[in-house]
Amino acid sequence: MLSTTISIRVRYGETDQMGVVYHGNYATYCEVARVEFFREMGLPYKELEDKGIMLPVVELNLKYAKPAYYDEVLHINILLPEIPRSVRLYFEYEIRNDKEELLTTANSTLAFVDMKTRRPVRCPEYMIKRLEELIF
Amino acid sequence: MLSTTISIRVRYGETDQMGVVYHGNYATYCEVARVEFFREMGLPYKELEDKGIMLPVVELNLKYAKPAYYDEVLHINILLPEIPRSVRLYFEYEIRNDKEELLTTANSTLAFVDMKTRRPVRCPEYMIKRLEELIF
Amino acid sequence: MLSTTISIRVRYGETDQMGVVYHGNYATYCEVARVEFFREMGLPYKELEDKGIMLPVVELNLKYAKPAYYDEVLHINILLPEIPRSVRLYFEYEIRNDKEELLTTANSTLAFVDMKTRRPVRCPEYMIKRLEELIF
Amino acid sequence: MLSTTISIRVRYGETDQMGVVYHGNYATYCEVARVEFFREMGLPYKELEDKGIMLPVVELNLKYAKPAYYDEVLHINILLPEIPRSVRLYFEYEIRNDKEELLTTANSTLAFVDMKTRRPVRCPEYMIKRLEELIF
Repeated sequence: MLSTTISIRVRYGETDQMGVVYHGNYATYCEVARVEFFREMGLPYKELEDKGIMLPVVELNLKYAKPAYYDEVLHINILLPEIPRSVRLYFEYEIRNDKEELLTTANSTLAFVDMKTRRPVRCPEYMIKRLEELIF
Repeated sequence: MLSTTISIRVRYGETDQMGVVYHGNYATYCEVARVEFFREMGLPYKELEDKGIMLPVVELNLKYAKPAYYDEVLHINILLPEIPRSVRLYFEYEIRNDKEELLTTANSTLAFVDMKTRRPVRCPEYMIKRLEELIF
Repeated sequence: MLSTTISIRVRYGETDQMGVVYHGNYATYCEVARVEFFREMGLPYKELEDKGIMLPVVELNLKYAKPAYYDEVLHINILLPEIPRSVRLYFEYEIRNDKEELLTTANSTLAFVDMKTRRPVRCPEYMIKRLEELIF
Repeated sequence: MLSTTISIRVRYGETDQMGVVYHGNYATYCEVARVEFFREMGLPYKELEDKGIMLPVVELNLKYAKPAYYDEVLHINILLPEIPRSVRLYFEYEIRNDKEELLTTANSTLAFVDMKTRRPVRCPEYMIKRLEELIF
């Protein structure tokens, strides 16, 4: 089980006329958390794409409990519950504001896909190895 | 059970560097389908906001089976399985391309919220009545 | 001089907490107008990309006179004042609401770029020829 | 003359299928720079909105020299050439990558607007005073 927390500040253009963050933007917030998670683990996502593997999202589930407001700093906790031993990668997210209120929970499933063949592939060995090192 | 299908064309800015529609944009596609659903039913969403009720999304679940490409026309079937008799409104979505391939399925739950008190309220009577007329 | 007018409806996620369309979204509205302009002229933009030429925006100037609101239908008039005889393509835009009020004016300059070399190229002959046919 | 530089990292969803940042997203980058400029000057934008004044963009001009790529850190230099002594506020921007290459230049004009009357107002005294203190 690996986890990290990243912080982002809500941009003006991310709000809608309800005066809160537009619900669709949480997909981006989760993506930013994933990218930083990989970077912190020493596994930059860009490197993966350079190796010819991409990671499209195949499932995304979001639960919105409370709204986030313009200029707030949001803290996104991202959790990898298990080492990805097959073609899929599963993450969980909790988004809180500065008052530690839980705003949104989410989970996503990504697929390792060969950029050329556009077919699913197993999680590369170097990634599994690195994640194992981090856990033990 | 009420349903309709709307079509939208993928915009350039909605793609990402994988060459496909960025997964976060499907939240917007579903929202466009909802808005048109309400309009077709004679229940424009703007009217609801004018009456002091807003409909924030409280849950959104997306499954991505196949990618959508720039300039493709997408057909979004939106389904209201049940008349909303309490504070929540549940929709299901199927997004297909011109070849009738199923690209994405989704469902969303919205809450009726009083704009002033920011508290949940029941679905307004005029909406229930109108939906009942449409079904029977 | 060639021109056309396309209509789009403002999406909820395109508004911000001022209750109007976020100013950054007009870049997308202009892009949608360009794409439809090309399609109407029998020169689909996708075909151009398939031929290995892309058209990045190199300059964009926007003047906002009045705001646009959620669910409004906007009418974007796009104008090509001159046939592009070199590496650049210049368009002008006027965006109006249903009341014929002028909301935003804009102009953009695009560059014909070879996708492989990433260097500027002249406007392809087939495009010049087609535009000439349309004018005369 | 007041200026500051802020850094942001390009998000995946901000790229398009050309493999570079979608040109429309620079409007948001400039906005993030403005917000941080105001915060650094001790004049948070949120405070201005709380005082009933909003700052819509009335003009935005962008020149794109080179593209920005996914995951790059961009450095946005924002410059206020003059203290805003009337109803308008003018900024200039230069966006560079880590290699100090100039990618995009921009300028924007904003208007001080009373939120209730929706009419232009002069720059509030407390803001002029604060900016004068910072310059001298």
